[in-house]
Amino acid sequence: MIGIKSISSYVPSQGMDNYAQGARFGKDEEFILGKIGSAFLPRKDDNQETSDLCVAAANALFMANPQLSRESVDALIVVTQNGDEEGLPHTAAIVQEKLGLTTRVAAFDVSLGCSGYVYGLYALKGFMEAAGLKNGLLITADPYSKIIDIEDRNTAMLFGDAATATWMGEGAEWQLGKASFGTDGSGAAHLKVAGKKFFMNGRQVFNFALLKVPAHLQELLEASGLKADDVDAFCIHQGSAAIVDAVARRFEQADPEKFIKDMLETGNTVSSSIPLLLEKHVLDSTFKRVAVSGFGVGLSWGSAILQRKG
Amino acid sequence: MIGIKSISSYVPSQGMDNYAQGARFGKDEEFILGKIGSAFLPRKDDNQETSDLCVAAANALFMANPQLSRESVDALIVVTQNGDEEGLPHTAAIVQEKLGLTTRVAAFDVSLGCSGYVYGLYALKGFMEAAGLKNGLLITADPYSKIIDIEDRNTAMLFGDAATATWMGEGAEWQLGKASFGTDGSGAAHLKVAGKKFFMNGRQVFNFALLKVPAHLQELLEASGLKADDVDAFCIHQGSAAIVDAVARRFEQADPEKFIKDMLETGNTVSSSIPLLLEKHVLDSTFKRVAVSGFGVGLSWGSAILQRKG
Repeated sequence: MIGIKSISSYVPSQGMDNYAQGARFGKDEEFILGKIGSAFLPRKDDNQETSDLCVAAANALFMANPQLSRESVDALIVVTQNGDEEGLPHTAAIVQEKLGLTTRVAAFDVSLGCSGYVYGLYALKGFMEAAGLKNGLLITADPYSKIIDIEDRNTAMLFGDAATATWMGEGAEWQLGKASFGTDGSGAAHLKVAGKKFFMNGRQVFNFALLKVPAHLQELLEASGLKADDVDAFCIHQGSAAIVDAVARRFEQADPEKFIKDMLETGNTVSSSIPLLLEKHVLDSTFKRVAVSGFGVGLSWGSAILQRKG
Repeated sequence: MIGIKSISSYVPSQGMDNYAQGARFGKDEEFILGKIGSAFLPRKDDNQETSDLCVAAANALFMANPQLSRESVDALIVVTQNGDEEGLPHTAAIVQEKLGLTTRVAAFDVSLGCSGYVYGLYALKGFMEAAGLKNGLLITADPYSKIIDIEDRNTAMLFGDAATATWMGEGAEWQLGKASFGTDGSGAAHLKVAGKKFFMNGRQVFNFALLKVPAHLQELLEASGLKADDVDAFCIHQGSAAIVDAVARRFEQADPEKFIKDMLETGNTVSSSIPLLLEKHVLDSTFKRVAVSGFGVGLSWGSAILQRKG
């Protein structure tokens, strides 16, 4: 069974002091820490393309896993809605070349936002199993600095640039359990780009997350025959401190402390938020089982159970 | 095993007379028929969005398959590089709403060009099997009329707008056999959009197809333990009449007549070309086994064996 073997990431070291940004909008430290949750927002250099962020994350993965050779990679998905080019070609093709992968790699982009990592796990695992492939890279990189209007108080304090790379293959320590997905295009206008600028109706998105995510997690637990006590940690999309806190409080079945919150130095990194949590807090932990849940652009959501082998 | 249950399509009835276009570029009927292969290029209305083409193809699929209810659809992939919006949200979310599907549908876009249908078949089958889903729609819609410069003699005579919808599920008449995929980002610049206009280096793409596709088909047959005689028809991407003819001649193992050529009234419809062939020439045929091969933007290619059950 194909599962998660390793995760690495790339977070730009340069970026924006979010307290200084908050001051511009008349927001104090309490707001920045308590509601937004991020003191620092990483920003790619202007000369870094989305594919460069992907390459940096994948190179970190190769460095951390010398047993994974570039030659052995035969599948590559890039999850992004802010790729290198104007629609075509897909960023995954550019990453194939920049990484020095062979031309025998099956590569495509998946267009999803904050739900993209959960979808991507099942898309890559399923594609590899259907096509008989062995070593896949699931890369997330959605640099919202390309589309954020820094004068927009609704979004300028929220998003950070980052990329992650997940190695999927046989014999993995972490296996994918049940998953559940959903889509509501009637809310598409709440998160969209128009005139090259990102627009977010924060209140609608907050309400959507608060209504949808706890119920979705509960359905997933029931479908999996699990109770909240069986889950060691909940790694949900780090939309903002306020969203994570509100979802954790609303999901009354579990101690809110089980909802990992870690966005202080990253901000909302879109589809990279969940793999950043897994890399830092789960893979080297003693956890046996975690739940993940991504939600956002689309509107789209996806939740899944990940469990340690054996 | 999840396979192909049905395919429907939407081809706009309005469009461009390609002989008239040829005359603008000093090209005669022999060139238009013999090299390009298309007398007519369908064009969407300006007020039709990509999602509307998707919806038209999917509605034709529902009409042709009354046993497939909208409520039962739980997976949806849209293959496009010319979606509705500027990057986000994904077109599949908009299609979910316009089609009146439930919010329990897992939906995302796959960004690929002319290789997209072959990838999409394995991406949707694999995703459905990995996530436990039952009824999937694989929709292709890549209206190049959005990006074609009608003054560009290298591309203006080639591309037509169309969309297709493939129902994938259990108990399907057509099963997916072995597949093989490849990517070469070093050729990304040969097919790309820059400044909102599509650019193609036709000679490079022709040479790529002629070198890659026959060899790739041969490898796939060998990996499948098949001979060319075991394959009833070859449905390759309809890039142009010249490309299909040249690939058919170069693939010496099979009668060139086995390479189906049908683009007279459609043009090159990108990821829709192969499912259009399957709908019209394969699903209701007596064929037992066909090979499909898509190739283009990326550069990217994918080939697969499809075989009738039992």
